[in-house]
Amino acid sequence: MNIAVAQSGGPTCAINASLLGVFSHAVKYDEIDLVYGSVNGIEGLIYDNLVNLFDIITDDEEIELIRQTPSTLLGSCRYKLPAYDKKPEIYEAILRTLRKYDIGAFFYIGGNDSMDTVMKLDRHFKENGIDIKVIGIPKTIDNDLPETDHTPGFGSAAKYVATSIQEITRDSSVYSIASVTIVEIMGRDTGWLTASSAILHANGEISPHLIYLPEKPFSIKQFIEDIREAQKKHYAVIVAVSEGISLSEEDIGEAFQSGNVDNFGHKYLSGVGKALEKIVAKELKCKVRSIELNVMQRCSSHLSSKRDITEAERIAGAAVKVALDGHSGKMMIFKRVANRPYNVKIEFVDVEKVANRVKYFPNEWINEAGNGVTKEAIEYCLPLIQGEQNFHMLNGIPKQYVLKCALPRDVGSHEP
Amino acid sequence: MNIAVAQSGGPTCAINASLLGVFSHAVKYDEIDLVYGSVNGIEGLIYDNLVNLFDIITDDEEIELIRQTPSTLLGSCRYKLPAYDKKPEIYEAILRTLRKYDIGAFFYIGGNDSMDTVMKLDRHFKENGIDIKVIGIPKTIDNDLPETDHTPGFGSAAKYVATSIQEITRDSSVYSIASVTIVEIMGRDTGWLTASSAILHANGEISPHLIYLPEKPFSIKQFIEDIREAQKKHYAVIVAVSEGISLSEEDIGEAFQSGNVDNFGHKYLSGVGKALEKIVAKELKCKVRSIELNVMQRCSSHLSSKRDITEAERIAGAAVKVALDGHSGKMMIFKRVANRPYNVKIEFVDVEKVANRVKYFPNEWINEAGNGVTKEAIEYCLPLIQGEQNFHMLNGIPKQYVLKCALPRDVGSHEP
Repeated sequence: MNIAVAQSGGPTCAINASLLGVFSHAVKYDEIDLVYGSVNGIEGLIYDNLVNLFDIITDDEEIELIRQTPSTLLGSCRYKLPAYDKKPEIYEAILRTLRKYDIGAFFYIGGNDSMDTVMKLDRHFKENGIDIKVIGIPKTIDNDLPETDHTPGFGSAAKYVATSIQEITRDSSVYSIASVTIVEIMGRDTGWLTASSAILHANGEISPHLIYLPEKPFSIKQFIEDIREAQKKHYAVIVAVSEGISLSEEDIGEAFQSGNVDNFGHKYLSGVGKALEKIVAKELKCKVRSIELNVMQRCSSHLSSKRDITEAERIAGAAVKVALDGHSGKMMIFKRVANRPYNVKIEFVDVEKVANRVKYFPNEWINEAGNGVTKEAIEYCLPLIQGEQNFHMLNGIPKQYVLKCALPRDVGSHEP
Repeated sequence: MNIAVAQSGGPTCAINASLLGVFSHAVKYDEIDLVYGSVNGIEGLIYDNLVNLFDIITDDEEIELIRQTPSTLLGSCRYKLPAYDKKPEIYEAILRTLRKYDIGAFFYIGGNDSMDTVMKLDRHFKENGIDIKVIGIPKTIDNDLPETDHTPGFGSAAKYVATSIQEITRDSSVYSIASVTIVEIMGRDTGWLTASSAILHANGEISPHLIYLPEKPFSIKQFIEDIREAQKKHYAVIVAVSEGISLSEEDIGEAFQSGNVDNFGHKYLSGVGKALEKIVAKELKCKVRSIELNVMQRCSSHLSSKRDITEAERIAGAAVKVALDGHSGKMMIFKRVANRPYNVKIEFVDVEKVANRVKYFPNEWINEAGNGVTKEAIEYCLPLIQGEQNFHMLNGIPKQYVLKCALPRDVGSHEP
């Protein structure tokens, strides 16, 4: 039989390592002949757009380059599979492709939405007696998948966030005048990545002085008070704020009027860093700057965590065995055994326990004032950012791997 | 005699290496006893705020940490020295401090404004028969100082810009829909750093597909046309744009009305990336994202160019000898001998030739359409981004050096 693998959702530094994990473990099993890559996530199965990974990955150097290349080698999608009774033709198209290529197991690397796809496909196959295994492999910088201790991609993003905020702290501290620097970090619903900025404290940094997560209601008044308090001790105050902080009821009306709340009436500020910059400048009349770490926090492979990359490969490799053992409708998970020395086991759970659910940052790891995190949070993050990859460089910049074979859709912008 | 050194202007990855260059060369000369650091640039001389660098730099590991720490160890300033007849008391305060610490030579690491300070101080000393040498050591990520082939700090910034845009290109190319990504790069007046994004082409990347510099008038209409043209060939169009692009006459009126031109009526767009994002979204109705590389492009020491750091140290070290040889009112420069193999000589010029002048990106290195740069530009940049530093890491992030001694002004935010 053959197998297929696809990458879905937002890019990370580790998602190509997971692709390699499936590939390099699959070749070890006699039961598996070919490994197909589905282009643009599940869309590749729908539109019959597969590539034979043996055509793409031909030597060891390519494997090393893929490991150090961020984002998704095979492209991605934001496609949410509809229920069968709404769109039966989609399921039929997927099945047609899987049958055409004699695929006995499908591995989907992704986050919450992708696990929903795994769940729906698996149910459909089981209900109809179709013997195709579907396994989810976790991936998201948000670290918000339930059941697993952490998700591949998170460690590298956390390493980038902590390193960058350390550098931003040096940059912001040069002048002898009071200043506030607000760093906006990804995380619509959960504060894991923003909280990871506190790793710096393990290195003796006091910065970031204030940390705000979506898990606590955000009061603008309290925020200004917090900064005033921090300014008594520090010329250069550094604030880490999650893009998804949710405004307290009292602030919503006002924020609406000032145009700082997004059009859909969500409780979060759109462009939270810039919005807070304006508010602080008005209230405190000091030098204020906002910095959005933007997509760099999820794609800066040059600073990826070696442990993250290694684990991403391992957990994906383990998924192959799980499918061959006859399981389906599962997501692979990490179980942390110990922090020091760090030790994790790889297991799996029913994907129902993960799909469409969110793992929030624990309330007990947020300080009482709601503007910082506890030592437990730092201890949790630290092992995940350890180690650096040995990079192949070309002309002074990291060498990357871009698909050379002609894909029906343009997923790169690289010369042949 | 003793000497003093100060750091000025915006932070870079190489300015602490230049501080080390002065320090480690000074200790080799019997004529020099102590090396003082002036805190917050020239302000330290004005307010008698010096530190003895022998108290700060005590062992080899500290030297290595300082070399890998971005921004200014001694703090910085944006102070422009007034003319003597306007503020004689400032000159007297500076002289008082220099005399108090028996300082025979002052080294000022900085950009255009700092060279103005070097020039004014030197003239004042010469006119009044005061035997204190003043030497400028170039530093700016903008690379816009005349006379020198390039400036320390530029190479590291260029390496960050090229590496990040490569990663952003991967990130932006994952979905099978048309998108435009606009990356805003520092450079108010000159396009050197934005042009350095073209280094990627040496690695086979087509991205960035379009590059806009302040040296050419920027037409919004032409910009939209350029993107339309690029979209015929690429799903994911990547644009590198300098923060300082200047609008053509026809665009200024319109940009004013939409609030996209800054309040001072300057011809540049304030928040150029965001402004262009809105314009493209409206005109082309596709997915558009703007990314500001922000201060990370000048402080990301974790990705500094080893050659840049080495050269910053060398040119500063050479400055010590120039002062001891009796020169004053000079700025150190690089003269490029060859590209391949790369070879530079270190010389010096009268600071008058540099102060308050700007070296623009050469017109002949901009393509005819005004939306890209030539191979000569790439050849120029490539040698400057070569090599990586071996980093001391602590807890998975680069170890940094922060002043431990009590400074009269808080220049850091680090625990003792």
